[in-house]
Amino acid sequence: LNILLCGDFDAAQRQQWLDALQAALPEARWLDRAQALVEAATVQAAVVANPAPGSLQGLPKLRLIQSLWAGVEGLLADPTLPTEVPLARMVDPAMNAAMAETALWAVLSLHRGFFDNAAAQRAGVWRQQAQRPAGQVQVAVLGLGQMGAAAARRLHQQGYRVAGWHLHNSPAKVEGVALHRSENALAPLLAKSDIVINLLPLTAATRALLDARFFATMPPGSAIVNLARGAHVVDADLLAALDSGHLQHAVLDVFHHEPLPGGHRFWRHPRVTLLPHVAAQTDPHSAATAVAANVRALMQGAPLAHLVQRRRGY
Amino acid sequence: LNILLCGDFDAAQRQQWLDALQAALPEARWLDRAQALVEAATVQAAVVANPAPGSLQGLPKLRLIQSLWAGVEGLLADPTLPTEVPLARMVDPAMNAAMAETALWAVLSLHRGFFDNAAAQRAGVWRQQAQRPAGQVQVAVLGLGQMGAAAARRLHQQGYRVAGWHLHNSPAKVEGVALHRSENALAPLLAKSDIVINLLPLTAATRALLDARFFATMPPGSAIVNLARGAHVVDADLLAALDSGHLQHAVLDVFHHEPLPGGHRFWRHPRVTLLPHVAAQTDPHSAATAVAANVRALMQGAPLAHLVQRRRGY
Repeated sequence: LNILLCGDFDAAQRQQWLDALQAALPEARWLDRAQALVEAATVQAAVVANPAPGSLQGLPKLRLIQSLWAGVEGLLADPTLPTEVPLARMVDPAMNAAMAETALWAVLSLHRGFFDNAAAQRAGVWRQQAQRPAGQVQVAVLGLGQMGAAAARRLHQQGYRVAGWHLHNSPAKVEGVALHRSENALAPLLAKSDIVINLLPLTAATRALLDARFFATMPPGSAIVNLARGAHVVDADLLAALDSGHLQHAVLDVFHHEPLPGGHRFWRHPRVTLLPHVAAQTDPHSAATAVAANVRALMQGAPLAHLVQRRRGY
Repeated sequence: LNILLCGDFDAAQRQQWLDALQAALPEARWLDRAQALVEAATVQAAVVANPAPGSLQGLPKLRLIQSLWAGVEGLLADPTLPTEVPLARMVDPAMNAAMAETALWAVLSLHRGFFDNAAAQRAGVWRQQAQRPAGQVQVAVLGLGQMGAAAARRLHQQGYRVAGWHLHNSPAKVEGVALHRSENALAPLLAKSDIVINLLPLTAATRALLDARFFATMPPGSAIVNLARGAHVVDADLLAALDSGHLQHAVLDVFHHEPLPGGHRFWRHPRVTLLPHVAAQTDPHSAATAVAANVRALMQGAPLAHLVQRRRGY
């Protein structure tokens, strides 16, 4: 069982992945791109993490491309990606849990004014804010996939009023979370939300969705949390909404260009809390378990999990 | 039914409390200190919030002193406090929930490195930290009263490994939270904890408990969260433990003197996150409900709730 492993990781990261994958799937041999081309007729699967364009060409027996990352918009943008080979996204329980933690931390920080407390500490000012119960805070989660559902569930458990927006098939059902499913439902949902969390996939339909009109629909004093992709946001529109004070705060984990360039206004904006794309990282151990399950399903002719619908874009 | 209402609140705060108390207990008349002295023979209960020393003298028919605050060490320090009148602490479900939120926010921030991210943002540095699962983080909650138990329960629900330490009678039982009950158990518990949360009452036994020996017992790189009282901490010892890097971080909501004086090193210390005593505020509406329940129990001769054991100190 020969599997191509390639991606944009450095030597140490590659070794960490190799260790985890070998432990989870000891029956496999893991080949780099050069080895895979030599033994091209034997390579049945590829496990990839943002591989260079063209990395999956020349493998005639390939029957599965398994991404190590949850987002596959980079893979789909490669015009040489074999179109007939099933492509699977990573769904990693540890990553879902980490994303839910980050969403909860952002909501607690916004709800309880802890970002304001941090600014007051830096200014040397003792300033107490009023306290309101979680049940008075309305949170919208855009995208109820695995990660959005995990975030919505935790927020509901903490007593927040949570609604979800999910356009396409098979949103996760989350107890206590109202589900909105039409394009027309987005504006009324935004208009009543104190905090909006973006966990949508990046597709042609969602790119630049968070624009001036989107922010203007949110109520004055509300906050945005972007944990999905930088390209969901029109940066200039977000900055304008923050500058005017219409939006109270933005928590941003993802950016058009990463690392975020040093001159970008997000770095220094008093209403921006910036994370360096750490909201949820794939955990090599639990991700390797997911890879092994899909590779074994392939070998046994069983259904593959988490396949990407290429027309939909995720 | 005449009740004395007095405390250190300003006119607006007094009115807010009056509104909530009148709604919860419409059969009562609420008197200030001057009125209460005029009608002294009719005052059966006092509802107090850090009243000036001597405020409860001269009321021969007093049968209940109900604090609006959870902490009563200020009341007990008043040598003129009538010793024979039952004294009740406030137990406010909204306050318990707020305390659990603050504890959870502090633990999420420490576990996931979000305080470090904030410092990196201010320094203009893109620096990703490793991610570890909540199940690898050991949290100790000191004091499993109403607020400690609420915090421990939420932390356990989020997947943290949680242990509690509680010396005196009737700690709350929290599913999944190991309970340690002896003085000797404290050091081994501290020694294995990544994060220690102080929610003890302030008594002769707990004053200055968080001293050099306490911090030295905690492991290198661990963090302290003080949500109880400033006098639990020996400030100079905490600063030394932070300066040396033995403690990674401190989250402090309470201080020896509040507001914290402008020159105090906590304000500017890079390892200190400072909150202005907002971890949990008493909610007038739910607190008034608790007051009404105890006053009605008094009138009906039923048992009073949350009575202070004066010898124990809380």
